[in-house]
Amino acid sequence: MSTTSSQAPQSGTPEKHALDGIFSPQSVAVLGVTPTPGTVPYDIFHNILSSGYRGTVYPVAPGKRSICAVKAYRYVLDIEDEVDQAVIVYPANVVERALEQCGRKGIKSVIVISAGFREVGPEGIKREQRIKDICKEYGISMVGPNCLGVINTDPKVQLNASFARKMPAAGRIAFLSQSGALCTAVLDYAREKAIGFSKFVSFGNKAGVTEIELFDYLHKDPATDIILLYLEELRDGRGLMEAARRVTRGEHAKPILAIKSGRTPQGADAASSHTGSLAGEDAVCDAVFREAGIIRVSSIEQMFNSAVMYTYQPMPSNDRLAIVTNAGGPGVMATDAAVGCGLSIPRFAQSTTEKLKQALPDTANVKNPVDVIGDARADRYDAALEAVLEDPNVDQALVILTPQSMTDIEAIAEGICRVHENAKKPIACSFMGASDVQPGIQLLQQSHIPHYILPEWACEAMSDIQKIRHWRQQSIDEPKRMPVDKATAERIIYAAEPGYLNEDEALDVMKAYGLPVPEHRLAKSVDEAVAAAEQIGYPAVLRVVSHQIIHKSEVKGVALDLPDANAVSQAYETMLKNVAKMAPDATIDGILVRGMIPTGYEIILGGKRDPVFGPTIMFGLGGIYVALFKDVTFALAPMDEGTADRMIHQVKACDLLEGARGGACANIDSVRDCLVRVGQLISDFDRIGELDVNPLIAGPAKIGNMVADVRIRITE
Amino acid sequence: MSTTSSQAPQSGTPEKHALDGIFSPQSVAVLGVTPTPGTVPYDIFHNILSSGYRGTVYPVAPGKRSICAVKAYRYVLDIEDEVDQAVIVYPANVVERALEQCGRKGIKSVIVISAGFREVGPEGIKREQRIKDICKEYGISMVGPNCLGVINTDPKVQLNASFARKMPAAGRIAFLSQSGALCTAVLDYAREKAIGFSKFVSFGNKAGVTEIELFDYLHKDPATDIILLYLEELRDGRGLMEAARRVTRGEHAKPILAIKSGRTPQGADAASSHTGSLAGEDAVCDAVFREAGIIRVSSIEQMFNSAVMYTYQPMPSNDRLAIVTNAGGPGVMATDAAVGCGLSIPRFAQSTTEKLKQALPDTANVKNPVDVIGDARADRYDAALEAVLEDPNVDQALVILTPQSMTDIEAIAEGICRVHENAKKPIACSFMGASDVQPGIQLLQQSHIPHYILPEWACEAMSDIQKIRHWRQQSIDEPKRMPVDKATAERIIYAAEPGYLNEDEALDVMKAYGLPVPEHRLAKSVDEAVAAAEQIGYPAVLRVVSHQIIHKSEVKGVALDLPDANAVSQAYETMLKNVAKMAPDATIDGILVRGMIPTGYEIILGGKRDPVFGPTIMFGLGGIYVALFKDVTFALAPMDEGTADRMIHQVKACDLLEGARGGACANIDSVRDCLVRVGQLISDFDRIGELDVNPLIAGPAKIGNMVADVRIRITE
Repeated sequence: MSTTSSQAPQSGTPEKHALDGIFSPQSVAVLGVTPTPGTVPYDIFHNILSSGYRGTVYPVAPGKRSICAVKAYRYVLDIEDEVDQAVIVYPANVVERALEQCGRKGIKSVIVISAGFREVGPEGIKREQRIKDICKEYGISMVGPNCLGVINTDPKVQLNASFARKMPAAGRIAFLSQSGALCTAVLDYAREKAIGFSKFVSFGNKAGVTEIELFDYLHKDPATDIILLYLEELRDGRGLMEAARRVTRGEHAKPILAIKSGRTPQGADAASSHTGSLAGEDAVCDAVFREAGIIRVSSIEQMFNSAVMYTYQPMPSNDRLAIVTNAGGPGVMATDAAVGCGLSIPRFAQSTTEKLKQALPDTANVKNPVDVIGDARADRYDAALEAVLEDPNVDQALVILTPQSMTDIEAIAEGICRVHENAKKPIACSFMGASDVQPGIQLLQQSHIPHYILPEWACEAMSDIQKIRHWRQQSIDEPKRMPVDKATAERIIYAAEPGYLNEDEALDVMKAYGLPVPEHRLAKSVDEAVAAAEQIGYPAVLRVVSHQIIHKSEVKGVALDLPDANAVSQAYETMLKNVAKMAPDATIDGILVRGMIPTGYEIILGGKRDPVFGPTIMFGLGGIYVALFKDVTFALAPMDEGTADRMIHQVKACDLLEGARGGACANIDSVRDCLVRVGQLISDFDRIGELDVNPLIAGPAKIGNMVADVRIRITE
Repeated sequence: MSTTSSQAPQSGTPEKHALDGIFSPQSVAVLGVTPTPGTVPYDIFHNILSSGYRGTVYPVAPGKRSICAVKAYRYVLDIEDEVDQAVIVYPANVVERALEQCGRKGIKSVIVISAGFREVGPEGIKREQRIKDICKEYGISMVGPNCLGVINTDPKVQLNASFARKMPAAGRIAFLSQSGALCTAVLDYAREKAIGFSKFVSFGNKAGVTEIELFDYLHKDPATDIILLYLEELRDGRGLMEAARRVTRGEHAKPILAIKSGRTPQGADAASSHTGSLAGEDAVCDAVFREAGIIRVSSIEQMFNSAVMYTYQPMPSNDRLAIVTNAGGPGVMATDAAVGCGLSIPRFAQSTTEKLKQALPDTANVKNPVDVIGDARADRYDAALEAVLEDPNVDQALVILTPQSMTDIEAIAEGICRVHENAKKPIACSFMGASDVQPGIQLLQQSHIPHYILPEWACEAMSDIQKIRHWRQQSIDEPKRMPVDKATAERIIYAAEPGYLNEDEALDVMKAYGLPVPEHRLAKSVDEAVAAAEQIGYPAVLRVVSHQIIHKSEVKGVALDLPDANAVSQAYETMLKNVAKMAPDATIDGILVRGMIPTGYEIILGGKRDPVFGPTIMFGLGGIYVALFKDVTFALAPMDEGTADRMIHQVKACDLLEGARGGACANIDSVRDCLVRVGQLISDFDRIGELDVNPLIAGPAKIGNMVADVRIRITE
């Protein structure tokens, strides 16, 4: 497997990869071929045979002498030559046996097209486990089961090992889909828009190869510039995040655009009955994608609109868009759309305005958006587009055309193509309408100028490109390990019974992990309480501590603002009496004595062990309004400081921490520190099922933060 | 103008309307025709001549004997016959003279195509005013200037008085646009999608006929079922609202879907430099549309997607959607989209599930969304669609198809068309892809089954239909007039100098209009203050009153929670001293004495006289978070109780008033009452420029509300 080549992965001779046998096999056996056109088994074999595959294909079709005039075999073991890849299309109950034979034949790459596995219920789940075991035993890389297959358009391979109707054109886009049926629609859609693919993979139930390994392969694939993904089920959140970060950043960075369906609870239900997948919380999925650098898109249309923009045009240096239009209305609509999706509409430099004034009639609008007026012909478009592209305040241009009676559509398109040849900034077009503008659109597409029927879509695509650009500039580090007293935390956590830690224990765990907790003592008598208060200082707070009491206030188990020893001792006695009356069955472990906590912004830090995503952290500001507006954000734990910082700035209420609306500034560095520490804590201890710092009081910048209340739930 | 016919407007013989001469003239003169094809003047004449116009058209072309072999006239006055309509295409500087001659000729309907008016600046504004004056003098209804023209596809008229490239097909949709250029794109787009129009109007600068009169005309037009509008400038908010309410409700209700561009400040700037229009605040525009029953859409695509759904399919009784698909992934995506835009995905009745189980293979999913599985042919689609449409829990169905290798696209489309023939519930389809699915799409479109390439768009269209349905069920009354003491308010307001009313005056105005204000007295001496406090009761509050002091706290002009006469007299003296020191130039009118106000939710009621919309009311809950989340809503004043109620329920924080999150319930009836009264106040008095009740304290349901602070600004 080692290679002596010192060349970079991108340079044309990629290093050997475990998935080479899936994408570039020298020989393929199709197991389960039938002689009936229009059936999946026949179509797959016929597709490989007829799409120009450069290797050798063998049909395995028991009882047939040949398929499509190609000699057939009874079993894969009967093939006398070496076979790199097997495509299995047998009914589900035969797959196991066929796969076993592939293993014995020494085949390391298998695509299982057949359905009838995990997606059909308990019997299928067992069947899927058995084929996974066989793959493990023989070291097989398996794509599927329950998929459409794999396509590689590389002219040196030309493999269509799928039952797609037609081979797509070659291009720089890799498309990965968990849904096979969606692939058929995407192939049809892409052909119409002249979009080509490098690799096309339907990975179905992903019992073997997952999107994570595919990311890794495609990162090194010199034919691929961008990766598109349709995902129904996210199984390994952190693995996906780490793989995607490797792909989307660095010298050979390739963007990943993804649709993750099952956004709504009803959608997740539908996905679950469709693929048997477990739905993680969608807000967490959003966070994983964001922190993975995966651009989450909402439709196939948006996905390809943005992919075409990325593939065909240079990366703009910033977000400033110039608009050139022959129609005021669409210019206004495009401006609204651009601003709405975060682009900016700059003022032009004086020199640009002068150029525009010279080239355009008096009635034209020489401000951005430039209106070349309804009777504009190619010369005006040319001059305007050239002028705005030369403007130092402009990073990219959108050209809008409506087919008015004087509009010379093809000549204008040709002019744009000419300008585009020498342009160093991205250009997109929107020729609005349909058949009238079609000849112009074709010219644009031939010159690889992205075209969108609606200017709004062009803006959305340009906005996605900005997300790619921003992501590459983010600082991402390894999860930060803060110096902590892990041993103390470990002692408390492993000594605890399942259930909530007592408040003093929880505070001690927090303290061991370096979170700012109020000084506190657990008192078992009045004298201890008074002594503790004397030591800590007044005003003091008393809080009852008992495993049986979750809501202390409800049993009168909290006393605040006690000014002196006398008040402490009185409050202690009263509290014991009250609690004994209101919670007679509770075992009181003592009374916690601590100081008052200064006022400040209330912050919630929540930790949870998600069945799909593992340890996750939630961040938000407290208060009823924030709950109402769901102004919270998530990330996987542990995390680096950059991630923590993005979390803080993701919530709208962060403006308040930064001193908006006349309030005090909080110490954001210190809040970020707390986030990283809480993330480290939950990921260090599997026994922590849930953790809530609610609230963390964020005081003015100089004072810093204080944990006002914390709950830690320990699992078995 | 009166008609003896007692028939309803819809029944084929519409009553006479001022715009009949625009849409259905017996004869048309085109003023300013030139003999050069490809110019606007020639194209317009040629379009009328060649599009099958049933009346007579006269070219006015000084110096030409004929145009397109039709006898030409030097002046419109030279035409020997009666002329119903004139289309003026002369350069802007000649329009005035031509219009004058039309007036003298007795022509009452004129379309001014020519540009060069308000949109080009001060000179154009004057020119536009002059042609408005001529129209007034001669009683002319004028469309334009600066427009594309008017099209009427009625076979009895067939008038294409526009420079659009081609006459559109006849259909049930009326399209109105302030942008002429957008019209050309829309016509091209619609032709491709086989969408027909009843009327097509580009109304440009709307110096004469506006969207309001067009609404009125189209409401009575038997050929029109739905009205689409592209608007850049809203000039008469209340007029639009009242006209739209007449159109969108009642027996002959027709929906209005509108794009209003200039949503963002940058877009509004662009619109202003394009049409010279004044931008009102977009949030208010949203409110006007909402209260007018106009569905605000964000793109041309959405507009036509929804219009086609409305035009071709029956109105569903509710929002429950069944999905039938041959592809799990798109089924999940459609479910997400449906739920995301407010549709519901019901469970099927037991009988439906049984039918589906019988008709579909074991591997199919018989729950909603129904997955008929990738190898489904027409029989499965037929059976599934019939079964779900018969389900009592289902109001409408969406059929999704992906072109898999076994998918018999045309047969499936034919099956859907057959089911559709007898269906009483709406059906929409999404055949995903492009060329492979095209033959199926054509069959669907021929049967008037709405088709959308993306299932998401189908859901969005269905969601817009729900908005239409809900609007028709809303209660809308005349603005409610509460019994108020207008005379007292009038006396205070008309006696006041421009600027803010003093607090006691503002409270008295509020009181006169029936708002709950705390009992208060203006004291001019310590003795008066103490007497007032004794009468009102303790604890008392003192607040300094001076026209020069806006922020009372900043000059120590507020004293709270005064328990007795002694405290009041001390606070009075201290306050006078402090204020004299901190605001030495202020004239003190006295000290306001009032009681403490109980705690409750803080509500903001704002009133403002908008230059575009007139008197408007803002509603929201107070507090920094709400400002951060912009959780406020607007309406025009005066208003009815239904509108006030919708305002209250529009803001998310309304949940709090309703007792969400364990808080107390506010008295919402009483909040609504306050809203209506504030609306009545600002609309009763032009001199009120601004008015802020901030906050109104909304107490628990039994206690009710109290105005805690109010500011009223009086204009010249």
